[in-house]
Amino acid sequence: MNQAVSGTPVETSHRLILGSRVNGTPVFSKEGERIGHVDDLSIERGTGRVVYAIMSFGGFLGIGEKFHPLPWSLLDYDVEHDGYVVPLDRSALENAPHYGRDELVELGGASIRHYDQRIFEYYGPYGPLPYW
Amino acid sequence: MNQAVSGTPVETSHRLILGSRVNGTPVFSKEGERIGHVDDLSIERGTGRVVYAIMSFGGFLGIGEKFHPLPWSLLDYDVEHDGYVVPLDRSALENAPHYGRDELVELGGASIRHYDQRIFEYYGPYGPLPYW
Repeated sequence: MNQAVSGTPVETSHRLILGSRVNGTPVFSKEGERIGHVDDLSIERGTGRVVYAIMSFGGFLGIGEKFHPLPWSLLDYDVEHDGYVVPLDRSALENAPHYGRDELVELGGASIRHYDQRIFEYYGPYGPLPYW
Repeated sequence: MNQAVSGTPVETSHRLILGSRVNGTPVFSKEGERIGHVDDLSIERGTGRVVYAIMSFGGFLGIGEKFHPLPWSLLDYDVEHDGYVVPLDRSALENAPHYGRDELVELGGASIRHYDQRIFEYYGPYGPLPYW
């Protein structure tokens, strides 16, 4: 295996990442404050695109835990923080569309167009374009 | 919430799926034989595309377990099986490129171009085009 790897440019070795490694990765506000962590991913079945990283936000032992679907393109991996930094401050993240776990499971992760519109309307000013 | 959902066409309510629901879903050969299950996903960081579903293939209590990265487009969800059916027979799936868990973790899921080429060369006759 080392033979196959030797000579491979470093950047290509990090082009892909396992979903199991994305989950649990902390999410920071633009000020560098830790806000939550990625709990799950929401994937468009047909194309296989990750539409949202589902951020878990607060709560204690699952009580009061809320989930904020973040458009994937907002997440910028930051080596120094060893986590994702998003270009919103804490209050903007707090006020973003969020759901309880039951809602996410039931809907396959904000899969109802009505929800999608609300989410992309909210994050639109930060760059992400609707995926549909 | 029910108000938001009512009137939404059924098909749109299943456009997205949570990664946590994909994981654990059984994979069947084209003859309908259960071969393994999806253990993880391999995601292209920049675009957020799921490139591979990582299929766990056999093994017992993790011993001898091998992982076969399957190009996402090969997976066809089948309601009757309640799982993914791929257009290969058992022996073609057995002979496909596979890796141990350590290799997958280290490489972020077959992220070295050399591996990608081998995988897409193997599955090319079944339809998937290289993603790069």
